[in-house]
Amino acid sequence: MQRNILVIGIGAGNPEHMTVEAIKALNRADVVFIPEKGAEKEELAALRRGICDRFIERAGVHRVSFAVPQRDASGGYRSGVEDWHEAIAGIYEALIRDELNEARTGAFLVWGDPSLYDSTLRILERVEARGALRLAVEVIPGITSIQALAASHRVVLNDIGKPVIITTGRRLGEDFAGEGTTVVMLDGGTAFAGHDPDTHIWWGAYLGTPDEIVIAGRLADVGEEIARTKQAARARKGWIMDTYLLKKQER
Amino acid sequence: MQRNILVIGIGAGNPEHMTVEAIKALNRADVVFIPEKGAEKEELAALRRGICDRFIERAGVHRVSFAVPQRDASGGYRSGVEDWHEAIAGIYEALIRDELNEARTGAFLVWGDPSLYDSTLRILERVEARGALRLAVEVIPGITSIQALAASHRVVLNDIGKPVIITTGRRLGEDFAGEGTTVVMLDGGTAFAGHDPDTHIWWGAYLGTPDEIVIAGRLADVGEEIARTKQAARARKGWIMDTYLLKKQER
Ligand SMILES: C[S@@+](CC[C@H](N)C(=O)[O-])C[C@H]1O[C@@H](n2cnc3c(N)ncnc32)[C@H](O)[C@@H]1O
Ligand SMILES: C[S@@+](CC[C@H](N)C(=O)[O-])C[C@H]1O[C@@H](n2cnc3c(N)ncnc32)[C@H](O)[C@@H]1O
Repeated sequence: MQRNILVIGIGAGNPEHMTVEAIKALNRADVVFIPEKGAEKEELAALRRGICDRFIERAGVHRVSFAVPQRDASGGYRSGVEDWHEAIAGIYEALIRDELNEARTGAFLVWGDPSLYDSTLRILERVEARGALRLAVEVIPGITSIQALAASHRVVLNDIGKPVIITTGRRLGEDFAGEGTTVVMLDGGTAFAGHDPDTHIWWGAYLGTPDEIVIAGRLADVGEEIARTKQAARARKGWIMDTYLLKKQER
Repeated sequence: MQRNILVIGIGAGNPEHMTVEAIKALNRADVVFIPEKGAEKEELAALRRGICDRFIERAGVHRVSFAVPQRDASGGYRSGVEDWHEAIAGIYEALIRDELNEARTGAFLVWGDPSLYDSTLRILERVEARGALRLAVEVIPGITSIQALAASHRVVLNDIGKPVIITTGRRLGEDFAGEGTTVVMLDGGTAFAGHDPDTHIWWGAYLGTPDEIVIAGRLADVGEEIARTKQAARARKGWIMDTYLLKKQER
Protein backbone atom coordinates (compact mmCIF):
# COMPACT_ATOMS: atom_id res chain seq x y z
CA MET A 1 0.00 0.00 0.00
CA GLN A 2 1.39 3.35 -1.08
CA ARG A 3 0.63 6.66 0.63
CA ASN A 4 0.48 9.90 -1.35
CA ILE A 5 2.21 12.83 0.30
CA LEU A 6 2.24 16.45 -0.87
CA VAL A 7 5.06 18.65 0.42
CA ILE A 8 3.81 22.19 -0.11
CA GLY A 9 5.97 25.32 0.06
CA ILE A 10 3.79 28.07 1.55
CA GLY A 11 6.13 31.05 1.28
CA ALA A 12 8.05 32.63 4.13
CA GLY A 13 5.56 34.99 5.75
CA ASN A 14 3.30 36.61 3.17
CA PRO A 15 0.21 34.43 2.55
CA GLU A 16 -0.14 36.07 -0.89
CA HIS A 17 3.08 34.32 -1.88
CA MET A 18 1.03 31.13 -2.13
CA THR A 19 1.05 29.86 -5.71
CA VAL A 20 -1.92 28.61 -7.70
CA GLU A 21 -0.34 25.16 -7.59
CA ALA A 22 0.04 25.26 -3.80
CA ILE A 23 -3.58 26.35 -3.34
CA LYS A 24 -4.77 23.51 -5.56
CA ALA A 25 -2.55 21.04 -3.69
CA LEU A 26 -4.02 22.16 -0.35
CA ASN A 27 -7.45 21.38 -1.75
CA ARG A 28 -6.35 18.00 -3.08
CA ALA A 29 -5.24 16.87 0.38
CA ASP A 30 -7.51 14.89 2.68
CA VAL A 31 -5.33 15.63 5.70
CA VAL A 32 -3.09 18.66 6.25
CA PHE A 33 -0.38 18.12 8.86
CA ILE A 34 0.45 21.29 10.78
CA PRO A 35 3.60 21.40 12.94
CA GLU A 36 3.50 23.23 16.26
CA LYS A 37 6.95 24.28 17.44
CA GLY A 38 6.42 25.65 20.94
CA ALA A 39 5.11 28.86 22.42
CA GLU A 40 7.50 31.38 20.83
CA LYS A 41 6.48 30.22 17.40
CA GLU A 42 2.74 30.58 18.08
CA GLU A 43 2.71 33.42 15.56
CA LEU A 44 4.08 31.16 12.83
CA ALA A 45 1.53 28.46 13.65
CA ALA A 46 -1.17 31.14 13.38
CA LEU A 47 0.19 32.08 9.97
CA ARG A 48 -0.05 28.46 8.81
CA ARG A 49 -3.61 28.20 10.15
CA GLY A 50 -4.46 31.48 8.42
CA ILE A 51 -3.26 30.05 5.11
CA CYS A 52 -5.46 26.98 5.59
CA ASP A 53 -8.47 29.12 6.57
CA ARG A 54 -8.06 31.37 3.57
CA PHE A 55 -7.20 28.91 0.84
CA ILE A 56 -8.85 25.58 1.67
CA GLU A 57 -12.22 25.66 -0.04
CA ARG A 58 -12.98 21.98 -0.33
CA ALA A 59 -15.09 20.68 2.55
CA GLY A 60 -13.66 17.68 4.33
CA VAL A 61 -9.98 18.67 4.31
CA HIS A 62 -9.00 17.50 7.79
CA ARG A 63 -6.30 19.33 9.79
CA VAL A 64 -4.01 17.50 12.18
CA SER A 65 -1.60 19.44 14.38
CA PHE A 66 1.44 17.74 15.83
CA ALA A 67 4.19 18.82 18.21
CA VAL A 68 7.74 19.00 16.83
CA PRO A 69 10.31 17.93 19.44
CA GLN A 70 13.17 20.26 20.36
CA ARG A 71 16.62 19.49 19.02
CA ASP A 72 19.19 18.38 21.59
CA ALA A 73 22.37 20.19 20.58
CA SER A 74 24.42 18.92 23.54
CA GLY A 75 26.19 16.18 21.53
CA GLY A 76 27.40 18.43 18.69
CA TYR A 77 25.60 19.84 15.67
CA ARG A 78 25.44 16.86 13.33
CA SER A 79 24.67 14.14 15.85
CA GLY A 80 22.02 16.43 17.39
CA VAL A 81 20.43 16.77 13.95
CA GLU A 82 20.59 13.00 13.28
CA ASP A 83 18.75 12.05 16.48
CA TRP A 84 16.28 14.87 16.03
CA HIS A 85 15.41 13.84 12.47
CA GLU A 86 15.00 10.22 13.57
CA ALA A 87 12.62 11.30 16.33
CA ILE A 88 10.57 13.38 13.89
CA ALA A 89 10.57 10.48 11.39
CA GLY A 90 8.88 8.38 14.06
CA ILE A 91 6.22 11.04 14.48
CA TYR A 92 5.68 11.37 10.71
CA GLU A 93 5.45 7.60 10.36
CA ALA A 94 2.74 7.38 13.00
CA LEU A 95 0.82 10.31 11.48
CA ILE A 96 0.95 8.85 7.99
CA ARG A 97 0.05 5.35 9.18
CA ASP A 98 -2.89 6.56 11.31
CA GLU A 99 -4.33 9.29 9.10
CA LEU A 100 -3.73 8.13 5.52
CA ASN A 101 -4.43 5.15 3.33
CA GLU A 102 -4.23 4.44 -0.39
CA ALA A 103 -7.20 6.71 -1.03
CA ARG A 104 -6.39 9.52 1.42
CA THR A 105 -3.63 12.02 0.54
CA GLY A 106 -1.66 13.91 3.18
CA ALA A 107 0.01 17.31 2.92
CA PHE A 108 2.92 18.75 4.87
CA LEU A 109 3.16 22.55 4.83
CA VAL A 110 6.72 23.82 4.55
CA TRP A 111 7.89 27.34 5.38
CA GLY A 112 9.30 29.03 2.27
CA ASP A 113 10.48 26.42 -0.23
CA PRO A 114 11.06 22.74 0.64
CA SER A 115 14.47 22.76 -1.09
CA LEU A 116 16.14 25.32 1.17
CA TYR A 117 17.35 24.52 4.69
CA ASP A 118 14.27 22.48 5.45
CA SER A 119 14.22 18.91 6.75
CA THR A 120 10.80 17.70 5.61
CA LEU A 121 12.03 15.85 2.49
CA ARG A 122 14.94 14.29 4.38
CA ILE A 123 12.62 13.10 7.13
CA LEU A 124 10.20 11.57 4.63
CA GLU A 125 13.18 9.71 3.13
CA ARG A 126 13.92 8.38 6.60
CA VAL A 127 10.34 7.27 6.99
CA GLU A 128 10.68 5.27 3.78
CA ALA A 129 14.05 3.89 4.86
CA ARG A 130 12.46 2.53 8.04
CA GLY A 131 10.70 0.14 5.69
CA ALA A 132 7.18 0.09 7.14
CA LEU A 133 5.58 2.51 4.64
CA ARG A 134 5.85 3.19 0.94
CA LEU A 135 5.44 6.85 0.01
CA ALA A 136 4.78 8.71 -3.25
CA VAL A 137 6.00 12.23 -2.57
CA GLU A 138 5.13 15.26 -4.70
CA VAL A 139 6.84 18.61 -4.04
CA ILE A 140 5.22 21.99 -4.68
CA PRO A 141 7.73 24.87 -4.66
CA GLY A 142 7.20 28.04 -2.62
CA ILE A 143 8.67 31.54 -2.50
CA THR A 144 11.75 31.53 -0.23
CA SER A 145 12.77 34.14 2.32
CA ILE A 146 15.69 34.99 0.00
CA GLN A 147 13.31 36.05 -2.76
CA ALA A 148 11.20 38.00 -0.27
CA LEU A 149 14.40 39.76 0.87
CA ALA A 150 15.50 40.60 -2.66
CA ALA A 151 12.01 41.82 -3.61
CA SER A 152 11.67 44.10 -0.60
CA HIS A 153 15.06 45.66 -1.36
CA ARG A 154 14.45 45.63 -5.14
CA VAL A 155 17.89 44.07 -5.51
CA VAL A 156 19.33 41.40 -7.81
CA LEU A 157 21.23 38.68 -5.95
CA ASN A 158 24.00 38.12 -8.48
CA ASP A 159 26.39 40.62 -9.99
CA ILE A 160 26.46 40.22 -13.78
CA GLY A 161 27.81 36.75 -14.61
CA LYS A 162 28.93 36.24 -10.98
CA PRO A 163 27.94 33.50 -8.50
CA VAL A 164 25.71 33.65 -5.42
CA ILE A 165 26.60 31.71 -2.27
CA ILE A 166 23.83 30.79 0.15
CA THR A 167 25.18 29.89 3.57
CA THR A 168 24.50 29.94 7.30
CA GLY A 169 25.61 32.38 10.00
CA ARG A 170 27.79 29.62 11.42
CA ARG A 171 29.72 29.21 8.16
CA LEU A 172 29.86 32.81 6.97
CA GLY A 173 33.52 33.21 7.98
CA GLU A 174 34.74 30.48 5.61
CA ASP A 175 32.20 30.99 2.82
CA PHE A 176 32.54 34.75 2.43
CA ALA A 177 36.08 34.43 1.08
CA GLY A 178 35.23 33.84 -2.60
CA GLU A 179 33.93 36.00 -5.40
CA GLY A 180 30.28 36.94 -5.82
CA THR A 181 27.53 37.77 -3.37
CA THR A 182 26.64 35.92 -0.19
CA VAL A 183 23.20 35.24 1.28
CA VAL A 184 23.11 34.36 4.97
CA MET A 185 20.31 32.39 6.64
CA LEU A 186 20.02 30.79 10.08
CA ASP A 187 22.18 33.42 11.80
CA GLY A 188 21.43 33.32 15.51
CA GLY A 189 23.66 36.34 16.08
CA THR A 190 25.31 38.93 13.88
CA ALA A 191 27.87 36.94 11.87
CA PHE A 192 28.29 39.92 9.51
CA ALA A 193 30.02 41.92 12.25
CA GLY A 194 33.77 42.27 11.82
CA HIS A 195 33.75 41.93 8.01
CA ASP A 196 35.19 44.63 5.74
CA PRO A 197 33.27 47.82 6.71
CA ASP A 198 32.88 48.67 3.00
CA THR A 199 30.78 45.54 2.45
CA HIS A 200 27.20 46.37 1.47
CA ILE A 201 24.44 44.59 3.40
CA TRP A 202 20.74 44.18 2.61
CA TRP A 203 19.05 42.88 5.77
CA GLY A 204 15.46 41.82 6.43
CA ALA A 205 13.54 40.38 9.37
CA TYR A 206 9.98 38.97 9.50
CA LEU A 207 9.95 39.39 5.73
CA GLY A 208 6.51 39.36 4.12
CA THR A 209 4.74 39.78 7.47
CA PRO A 210 3.21 42.97 8.87
CA ASP A 211 6.29 43.24 11.15
CA GLU A 212 8.78 43.26 8.26
CA ILE A 213 11.91 45.34 8.94
CA VAL A 214 14.48 46.06 6.21
CA ILE A 215 17.77 47.95 6.47
CA ALA A 216 20.46 48.39 3.80
CA GLY A 217 23.77 50.17 3.53
CA ARG A 218 27.52 49.84 4.12
CA LEU A 219 28.38 47.68 7.13
CA ALA A 220 30.26 50.65 8.56
CA ASP A 221 27.08 52.74 8.40
CA VAL A 222 24.31 50.28 9.31
CA GLY A 223 25.98 47.25 10.96
CA GLU A 224 25.36 48.45 14.51
CA GLU A 225 21.87 49.64 13.71
CA ILE A 226 21.03 46.15 12.42
CA ALA A 227 22.50 44.52 15.52
CA ARG A 228 20.48 46.84 17.81
CA THR A 229 17.31 46.40 15.75
CA LYS A 230 17.67 42.61 15.81
CA GLN A 231 18.19 42.53 19.57
CA ALA A 232 15.25 44.84 20.25
CA ALA A 233 12.92 42.96 17.90
CA ARG A 234 13.82 39.62 19.43
CA ALA A 235 13.25 41.00 22.93
CA ARG A 236 9.90 42.46 21.93
CA LYS A 237 8.49 39.44 20.08
CA GLY A 238 10.39 36.61 21.75
CA TRP A 239 11.75 35.27 18.43
CA ILE A 240 13.22 36.55 15.19
CA MET A 241 13.82 35.29 11.66
CA ASP A 242 16.22 37.31 9.57
CA THR A 243 18.13 36.89 6.32
CA TYR A 244 20.67 39.11 4.60
CA LEU A 245 22.72 39.58 1.48
CA LEU A 246 26.36 40.77 1.48
CA LYS A 247 28.22 42.22 -1.51
CA LYS A 248 31.83 43.20 -1.37
CA GLN A 249 32.56 46.66 -2.64
CA GLU A 250 34.16 46.66 -6.11
CA ARG A 251 37.53 48.40 -5.93
CA MET B 1 6.05 63.19 -12.15
CA GLN B 2 6.63 59.69 -10.85
CA ARG B 3 5.79 56.51 -12.73
CA ASN B 4 4.74 53.34 -10.88
CA ILE B 5 6.32 50.17 -12.17
CA LEU B 6 5.59 46.62 -11.09
CA VAL B 7 8.26 44.00 -11.78
CA ILE B 8 6.42 40.70 -11.58
CA GLY B 9 8.08 37.28 -11.31
CA ILE B 10 5.90 34.85 -13.29
CA GLY B 11 7.68 31.57 -12.57
CA ALA B 12 9.92 29.68 -14.98
CA GLY B 13 7.51 27.69 -17.13
CA ASN B 14 4.54 26.46 -15.11
CA PRO B 15 1.73 29.06 -15.15
CA GLU B 16 0.43 27.56 -11.89
CA HIS B 17 3.58 28.85 -10.21
CA MET B 18 2.01 32.31 -10.34
CA THR B 19 1.46 33.61 -6.81
CA VAL B 20 -1.67 35.31 -5.51
CA GLU B 21 0.39 38.49 -5.21
CA ALA B 22 1.56 38.27 -8.82
CA ILE B 23 -1.99 37.72 -10.07
CA LYS B 24 -3.22 40.73 -8.11
CA ALA B 25 -0.31 42.82 -9.43
CA LEU B 26 -1.18 41.87 -13.02
CA ASN B 27 -4.68 43.16 -12.39
CA ARG B 28 -3.40 46.38 -10.80
CA ALA B 29 -1.43 47.27 -13.92
CA ASP B 30 -2.83 49.53 -16.61
CA VAL B 31 -0.20 48.43 -19.10
CA VAL B 32 1.63 45.10 -19.21
CA PHE B 33 4.90 45.19 -21.18
CA ILE B 34 5.65 41.91 -22.92
CA PRO B 35 9.14 41.29 -24.34
CA GLU B 36 9.49 39.43 -27.65
CA LYS B 37 12.93 37.88 -28.04
CA GLY B 38 12.97 36.56 -31.61
CA ALA B 39 11.53 33.55 -33.36
CA GLU B 40 13.18 30.76 -31.38
CA LYS B 41 11.62 32.09 -28.21
CA GLU B 42 8.09 32.27 -29.67
CA GLU B 43 7.09 29.48 -27.28
CA LEU B 44 8.17 31.56 -24.29
CA ALA B 45 6.28 34.59 -25.59
CA ALA B 46 3.23 32.34 -25.95
CA LEU B 47 3.65 31.27 -22.36
CA ARG B 48 3.70 34.91 -21.22
CA ARG B 49 0.60 35.66 -23.28
CA GLY B 50 -1.07 32.57 -21.82
CA ILE B 51 -0.42 33.88 -18.31
CA CYS B 52 -1.99 37.22 -19.21
CA ASP B 53 -5.00 35.53 -20.83
CA ARG B 54 -5.58 33.30 -17.86
CA PHE B 55 -4.97 35.66 -14.97
CA ILE B 56 -5.89 39.17 -16.09
CA GLU B 57 -9.53 39.61 -15.14
CA ARG B 58 -9.81 43.38 -14.95
CA ALA B 59 -11.03 44.92 -18.17
CA GLY B 60 -8.83 47.65 -19.59
CA VAL B 61 -5.44 46.13 -18.81
CA HIS B 62 -3.58 47.10 -21.95
CA ARG B 63 -0.81 44.87 -23.38
CA VAL B 64 2.20 46.28 -25.19
CA SER B 65 4.69 43.97 -26.84
CA PHE B 66 8.20 45.18 -27.58
CA ALA B 67 11.21 43.66 -29.33
CA VAL B 68 14.30 42.99 -27.22
CA PRO B 69 17.51 43.64 -29.21
CA GLN B 70 20.11 40.89 -29.50
CA ARG B 71 23.28 41.17 -27.42
CA ASP B 72 26.47 41.87 -29.36
CA ALA B 73 29.04 39.58 -27.73
CA SER B 74 31.85 40.51 -30.15
CA GLY B 75 33.51 42.99 -27.76
CA GLY B 76 33.78 40.63 -24.78
CA TYR B 77 31.18 39.54 -22.23
CA ARG B 78 30.96 42.56 -19.94
CA SER B 79 31.14 45.32 -22.52
CA GLY B 80 28.59 43.44 -24.64
CA VAL B 81 26.26 43.40 -21.64
CA GLU B 82 26.82 47.11 -20.89
CA ASP B 83 25.88 48.27 -24.40
CA TRP B 84 23.00 45.86 -24.56
CA HIS B 85 21.54 47.06 -21.25
CA GLU B 86 21.91 50.68 -22.35
CA ALA B 87 20.04 49.92 -25.56
CA ILE B 88 17.23 48.20 -23.67
CA ALA B 89 17.13 51.10 -21.18
CA GLY B 90 16.37 53.39 -24.10
CA ILE B 91 13.49 51.14 -25.14
CA TYR B 92 12.13 50.95 -21.58
CA GLU B 93 12.39 54.72 -21.22
CA ALA B 94 10.35 55.29 -24.37
CA LEU B 95 7.74 52.71 -23.35
CA ILE B 96 7.34 54.19 -19.89
CA ARG B 97 7.23 57.76 -21.19
CA ASP B 98 4.68 56.97 -23.90
CA GLU B 99 2.42 54.52 -22.10
CA LEU B 100 2.40 55.62 -18.46
CA ASN B 101 1.69 58.71 -16.42
CA GLU B 102 1.20 59.43 -12.73
CA ALA B 103 -2.15 57.63 -12.78
CA ARG B 104 -1.23 54.70 -15.03
CA THR B 105 0.86 51.83 -13.63
CA GLY B 106 3.06 49.63 -15.83
CA ALA B 107 4.12 46.02 -15.28
CA PHE B 108 7.14 44.14 -16.59
CA LEU B 109 6.80 40.36 -16.54
CA VAL B 110 10.00 38.58 -15.52
CA TRP B 111 10.78 34.92 -16.13
CA GLY B 112 11.24 33.09 -12.82
CA ASP B 113 12.23 35.55 -10.09
CA PRO B 114 13.52 39.08 -10.77
CA SER B 115 16.44 38.60 -8.35
CA LEU B 116 18.15 35.79 -10.24
CA TYR B 117 20.20 36.34 -13.42
CA ASP B 118 17.69 38.80 -14.77
CA SER B 119 18.44 42.30 -15.99
CA THR B 120 15.05 44.03 -15.60
CA LEU B 121 15.85 45.72 -12.26
CA ARG B 122 19.28 46.81 -13.45
CA ILE B 123 17.81 48.28 -16.62
CA LEU B 124 15.15 50.19 -14.68
CA GLU B 125 17.98 51.63 -12.54
CA ARG B 126 19.64 52.76 -15.75
CA VAL B 127 16.43 54.39 -16.88
CA GLU B 128 16.35 56.36 -13.64
CA ALA B 129 20.05 57.22 -13.95
CA ARG B 130 19.39 58.75 -17.38
CA GLY B 131 17.51 61.40 -15.42
CA ALA B 132 14.44 61.94 -17.59
CA LEU B 133 12.01 59.82 -15.54
CA ARG B 134 11.38 59.19 -11.86
CA LEU B 135 10.26 55.62 -11.11
CA ALA B 136 8.67 53.94 -8.10
CA VAL B 137 9.46 50.26 -8.55
CA GLU B 138 7.73 47.42 -6.71
CA VAL B 139 9.04 43.86 -7.04
CA ILE B 140 6.84 40.76 -6.81
CA PRO B 141 8.85 37.56 -6.33
CA GLY B 142 8.32 34.45 -8.48
CA ILE B 143 9.26 30.78 -8.36
CA THR B 144 12.71 30.31 -9.91
CA SER B 145 13.87 27.54 -12.23
CA ILE B 146 16.06 26.32 -9.34
CA GLN B 147 13.02 25.65 -7.18
CA ALA B 148 11.24 23.99 -10.09
CA LEU B 149 14.32 21.77 -10.56
CA ALA B 150 14.49 20.82 -6.88
CA ALA B 151 10.74 20.15 -6.71
CA SER B 152 10.72 17.88 -9.77
CA HIS B 153 13.62 15.87 -8.33
CA ARG B 154 12.22 16.05 -4.76
CA VAL B 155 15.68 17.10 -3.63
CA VAL B 156 16.98 19.57 -1.03
CA LEU B 157 19.60 21.95 -2.40
CA ASN B 158 21.83 22.14 0.67
CA ASP B 159 23.45 19.33 2.62
CA ILE B 160 22.76 19.78 6.34
CA GLY B 161 24.40 23.03 7.51
CA LYS B 162 26.31 23.32 4.21
CA PRO B 163 26.31 26.13 1.61
CA VAL B 164 24.78 26.27 -1.87
CA ILE B 165 26.59 28.02 -4.73
CA ILE B 166 24.58 29.28 -7.67
CA THR B 167 26.74 29.92 -10.70
CA THR B 168 26.87 29.91 -14.49
CA GLY B 169 28.16 27.28 -16.92
CA ARG B 170 30.98 29.67 -17.80
CA ARG B 171 32.20 29.86 -14.19
CA LEU B 172 31.56 26.29 -13.05
CA GLY B 173 35.25 25.34 -13.23
CA GLU B 174 36.31 27.89 -10.63
CA ASP B 175 33.18 27.82 -8.46
CA PHE B 176 32.89 24.05 -8.06
CA ALA B 177 36.07 23.87 -5.99
CA GLY B 178 34.57 24.64 -2.56
CA GLU B 179 32.38 22.73 -0.15
CA GLY B 180 28.63 22.33 -0.55
CA THR B 181 26.38 21.89 -3.55
CA THR B 182 26.47 23.80 -6.82
CA VAL B 183 23.56 24.96 -8.98
CA VAL B 184 24.39 25.79 -12.59
CA MET B 185 22.33 28.10 -14.80
CA LEU B 186 23.03 29.66 -18.19
CA ASP B 187 25.09 26.72 -19.44
CA GLY B 188 25.19 26.86 -23.25
CA GLY B 189 27.01 23.54 -23.36
CA THR B 190 27.78 20.78 -20.88
CA ALA B 191 30.09 22.41 -18.35
CA PHE B 192 29.55 19.45 -16.01
CA ALA B 193 31.53 17.17 -18.34
CA GLY B 194 34.99 16.28 -17.10
CA HIS B 195 34.23 16.68 -13.39
CA ASP B 196 34.73 13.84 -10.90
CA PRO B 197 32.62 10.95 -12.30
CA ASP B 198 31.30 10.22 -8.77
CA THR B 199 29.63 13.65 -8.64
CA HIS B 200 25.85 13.36 -8.48
CA ILE B 201 23.85 15.50 -10.92
CA TRP B 202 20.16 16.45 -10.95
CA TRP B 203 19.41 17.93 -14.37
CA GLY B 204 16.24 19.48 -15.78
CA ALA B 205 15.22 21.13 -19.04
CA TYR B 206 12.03 23.05 -19.92
CA LEU B 207 11.10 22.71 -16.25
CA GLY B 208 7.47 23.27 -15.40
CA THR B 209 6.40 23.06 -19.06
CA PRO B 210 4.76 20.10 -20.83
CA ASP B 211 8.19 19.35 -22.39
CA GLU B 212 9.97 19.00 -19.02
CA ILE B 213 12.83 16.48 -19.03
CA VAL B 214 14.62 15.43 -15.84
CA ILE B 215 17.58 13.08 -15.42
CA ALA B 216 19.53 12.30 -12.22
CA GLY B 217 22.43 10.05 -11.27
CA ARG B 218 26.23 9.83 -11.04
CA LEU B 219 28.01 11.79 -13.77
CA ALA B 220 29.69 8.55 -14.80
CA ASP B 221 26.28 6.96 -15.36
CA VAL B 222 24.17 9.78 -16.82
CA GLY B 223 26.58 12.49 -18.02
CA GLU B 224 26.57 11.34 -21.62
CA GLU B 225 22.84 10.68 -21.62
CA ILE B 226 22.28 14.28 -20.49
CA ALA B 227 24.61 15.62 -23.19
CA ARG B 228 22.80 13.60 -25.87
CA THR B 229 19.37 14.54 -24.55
CA LYS B 230 20.28 18.21 -24.49
CA GLN B 231 21.59 18.17 -28.03
CA ALA B 232 18.57 16.31 -29.36
CA ALA B 233 16.08 18.54 -27.54
CA ARG B 234 17.78 21.70 -28.81
CA ALA B 235 17.77 20.35 -32.35
CA ARG B 236 14.10 19.41 -32.10
CA LYS B 237 12.78 22.63 -30.55
CA GLY B 238 15.39 25.12 -31.73
CA TRP B 239 16.18 26.31 -28.19
CA ILE B 240 16.73 24.90 -24.73
CA MET B 241 16.73 26.10 -21.13
CA ASP B 242 18.30 23.79 -18.60
CA THR B 243 19.51 23.96 -15.02
CA TYR B 244 21.27 21.44 -12.82
CA LEU B 245 22.52 20.72 -9.34
CA LEU B 246 25.83 19.02 -8.58
CA LYS B 247 26.79 17.36 -5.29
CA LYS B 248 30.16 15.87 -4.65
CA GLN B 249 30.06 12.35 -3.33
CA GLU B 250 30.90 12.18 0.40
CA ARG B 251 33.92 9.93 0.93
C1 LIG C 1 15.17 26.59 8.56
S1 LIG C 1 15.41 27.92 7.43
C2 LIG C 1 14.02 27.71 6.38
C3 LIG C 1 14.10 28.49 5.09
C4 LIG C 1 12.85 28.33 4.25
N1 LIG C 1 12.68 26.96 3.77
C5 LIG C 1 12.86 29.30 3.06
O1 LIG C 1 12.64 28.84 1.92
O2 LIG C 1 13.02 30.50 3.27
C6 LIG C 1 14.99 29.29 8.45
C7 LIG C 1 15.75 30.55 8.07
O3 LIG C 1 15.10 31.14 6.96
C8 LIG C 1 15.15 32.54 7.04
N2 LIG C 1 13.76 33.05 7.06
C9 LIG C 1 12.65 32.31 6.94
N3 LIG C 1 11.56 33.09 6.92
C10 LIG C 1 11.99 34.36 7.05
C11 LIG C 1 11.34 35.63 7.09
N4 LIG C 1 10.01 35.73 6.99
N5 LIG C 1 12.12 36.73 7.22
C12 LIG C 1 13.45 36.64 7.30
N6 LIG C 1 14.11 35.48 7.28
C13 LIG C 1 13.40 34.34 7.14
C14 LIG C 1 15.93 32.88 8.30
O4 LIG C 1 17.29 33.06 7.94
C15 LIG C 1 15.74 31.64 9.13
O5 LIG C 1 16.83 31.46 10.03
C1 LIG D 1 18.62 34.53 -17.69
S1 LIG D 1 18.41 33.21 -16.54
C2 LIG D 1 16.87 33.63 -15.81
C3 LIG D 1 16.57 32.87 -14.54
C4 LIG D 1 15.20 33.22 -13.98
N1 LIG D 1 15.13 34.61 -13.53
C5 LIG D 1 14.81 32.29 -12.83
O1 LIG D 1 14.44 32.80 -11.76
O2 LIG D 1 14.85 31.06 -13.02
C6 LIG D 1 18.03 31.89 -17.66
C7 LIG D 1 18.50 30.54 -17.15
O3 LIG D 1 17.56 30.08 -16.19
C8 LIG D 1 17.42 28.68 -16.29
N2 LIG D 1 16.01 28.39 -16.61
C9 LIG D 1 15.01 29.29 -16.70
N3 LIG D 1 13.85 28.68 -16.95
C10 LIG D 1 14.11 27.35 -17.00
C11 LIG D 1 13.30 26.19 -17.19
N4 LIG D 1 11.98 26.28 -17.38
N5 LIG D 1 13.92 24.98 -17.18
C12 LIG D 1 15.23 24.87 -16.97
N6 LIG D 1 16.03 25.94 -16.78
C13 LIG D 1 15.49 27.15 -16.79
C14 LIG D 1 18.39 28.21 -17.36
O4 LIG D 1 19.58 27.84 -16.71
C15 LIG D 1 18.57 29.46 -18.18
O5 LIG D 1 19.82 29.46 -18.83
